Amino acid sequence: MKRYLLAPGPTPIPPEVLLAMAQPIIHHRTPEYEALFADVRRDLRLLFQCKNEVLIFAASGTGAMEGAVVNTLSAGDQVVVVRGGKFGERWAEICEAYGVRVLPVDVPYGKSVDPAAVAAALKSEPAVKAVFATHSETSTGAVHDVQAIAAIVRETPAILIVDAITSLGVMDLPMDAWGADIVVAGSQKAMMLPPGLAFAALSDRAWALVPGARLPKYYFNFTAERKAIEKNQSAYTPAVSLVVGLRESLRLILAEGLPNVFARHDRLARATRAGVQALGLELFAEHPGCACTAVKAPAGIEGGAIVKGFRQRGITIAGGQGSMRGKIFRIAHMGYVDGFDVLTALTALEFVLADLGHPVTFGEGIRAAQRILQK
Amino acid sequence: MKRYLLAPGPTPIPPEVLLAMAQPIIHHRTPEYEALFADVRRDLRLLFQCKNEVLIFAASGTGAMEGAVVNTLSAGDQVVVVRGGKFGERWAEICEAYGVRVLPVDVPYGKSVDPAAVAAALKSEPAVKAVFATHSETSTGAVHDVQAIAAIVRETPAILIVDAITSLGVMDLPMDAWGADIVVAGSQKAMMLPPGLAFAALSDRAWALVPGARLPKYYFNFTAERKAIEKNQSAYTPAVSLVVGLRESLRLILAEGLPNVFARHDRLARATRAGVQALGLELFAEHPGCACTAVKAPAGIEGGAIVKGFRQRGITIAGGQGSMRGKIFRIAHMGYVDGFDVLTALTALEFVLADLGHPVTFGEGIRAAQRILQK
Repeated sequence: MKRYLLAPGPTPIPPEVLLAMAQPIIHHRTPEYEALFADVRRDLRLLFQCKNEVLIFAASGTGAMEGAVVNTLSAGDQVVVVRGGKFGERWAEICEAYGVRVLPVDVPYGKSVDPAAVAAALKSEPAVKAVFATHSETSTGAVHDVQAIAAIVRETPAILIVDAITSLGVMDLPMDAWGADIVVAGSQKAMMLPPGLAFAALSDRAWALVPGARLPKYYFNFTAERKAIEKNQSAYTPAVSLVVGLRESLRLILAEGLPNVFARHDRLARATRAGVQALGLELFAEHPGCACTAVKAPAGIEGGAIVKGFRQRGITIAGGQGSMRGKIFRIAHMGYVDGFDVLTALTALEFVLADLGHPVTFGEGIRAAQRILQK
Repeated sequence: MKRYLLAPGPTPIPPEVLLAMAQPIIHHRTPEYEALFADVRRDLRLLFQCKNEVLIFAASGTGAMEGAVVNTLSAGDQVVVVRGGKFGERWAEICEAYGVRVLPVDVPYGKSVDPAAVAAALKSEPAVKAVFATHSETSTGAVHDVQAIAAIVRETPAILIVDAITSLGVMDLPMDAWGADIVVAGSQKAMMLPPGLAFAALSDRAWALVPGARLPKYYFNFTAERKAIEKNQSAYTPAVSLVVGLRESLRLILAEGLPNVFARHDRLARATRAGVQALGLELFAEHPGCACTAVKAPAGIEGGAIVKGFRQRGITIAGGQGSMRGKIFRIAHMGYVDGFDVLTALTALEFVLADLGHPVTFGEGIRAAQRILQK
């Protein structure tokens, strides 16, 4: 059976990238790797839209999230965490594992935070060292207004730390221009790579906190990694094959051009939303982002049955996590994805709903998406 | 120019493994991945020669080393660390980063620890919680007698934590039989994979320490990872492509058979040693291991010039690290390597020494190695 991957990470990998990674491996202390690594460093700064070095770790994105905590904070520090889904909750879990005091700004699943709630939290606790937010909350499909949050945090002594794991390369996040202080990303989303690389970029304001941060760390020590990367090296053995793939995927992204990449993701997201809504289904997120579309399972149908129906037709999508399990399903459209992939997903959705006895007029979802994709 | 990789990690990757990793990526929450992952878990236990699950992390080996520390210890705990090179020193650095008190057992570079020195350290400090050792100290080429150390540690309440990053799959390390309590490994050595996977296997004695360990952790939380792996999953997104490659490389290793794999590495190491000695060069390690051969640069020749000479002939070997820089060079022979690779290295060594004005009779090193390899 021909297979399609439309889940929110890992995402499909372009053949150019797969082939680059299938070359015989090279050693990381060679002129060949060093030339490649210099390209990667330059292109990463373009992707992150920042002037400082982007640190690269052999890890899942969660590793860089932990790094953002342990390199800027000390036990007992007060932080504000926006929690609107599984990944916002992860920020709080990491902070709590290290004895950092968390003032949560809780947002119901599917909603996006009101920036005024962040401002209120900052006012109620004047000693806040950092605010943690999630740009694209993958578990709910919601986008949070990082630009507005950054404008608020910038007026305080706190820094803003953003999980951009499923937003970097999907939606515009001009880190330096907006004043986000740490942006964390992972390889297996819009970067079109396998999982295994995590990234963190720090503003000068964030770097200023690092020397005073007392939390213990070793592998995710940003200071050691910055010292190494400034010599065009890594503190520990880098995930060489993934970095080789990264050079190719960054080339593809920059050749398309960031504004075009963002416009494509926006178009694919709008087409997907229009398609599922034309089939009478409801979106789960009030302000859906462009990485993946979370859809409420229609009454009487278990979300898992829809995921299974897709799988039986060769397509991997995702269900709901935690308390959203069974209630939603999620179709991703980020990275190496185009309009025909969205139409494939919507066609399958029509089939699966019909299989499950839900009333469907074939072509309704597809047509609604076509109208958006043709432009 | 045709290229050869004979450095101590990354090591060459078999084409079967490269091609497996070049397949379109699959999602980690699918029946297909779960079947593959079950195979990997079973085969890893065979490779580690242990009954408990082997935990897998998306990280360099150093990440699993940190995990071994933070999951078994608390700040202020007393440990003994065998330091005989860069990697023994790393154990101490990690412990110190977390406020663990280190009693070092220092061994001059190139020497192997006298197990009696470990026994003496344990006697001098009765509250020792853990002993840290390095099976194969890659920076010096020395092997340490883990079996003897384990026999000593087993008579005390301490656990033995072993860095087997360049020994697993090279030299026999029957973890359960010897009583090693934690064995840490990495993908880019004898496992014949790119860097990016780290492994840790724990004995029941080691697991018994985990609930009481107060050091903070999140990404390298062994309890969370064990809970996930027992459900055939990973706590965070696994490095899918590397796990796919791992299934192939484990198949290759187990098809060759562990005793044959160890015998091959022993033969290659003996051939390399015989070859360099026949050229009048001296080994750096008193008790050299089978992963890589560290050789003293001959008087008047800088070690870096030898590494550079190899590079100009298409071969990547390694120089010395830290204070050994310039004084030694290291030829690795682990993983996807056979006798012809060793002969290639020795041929190149003859060329390079001659280029650098060192007296060489062509064929002397090769012949000495051939005598060992023919058997």
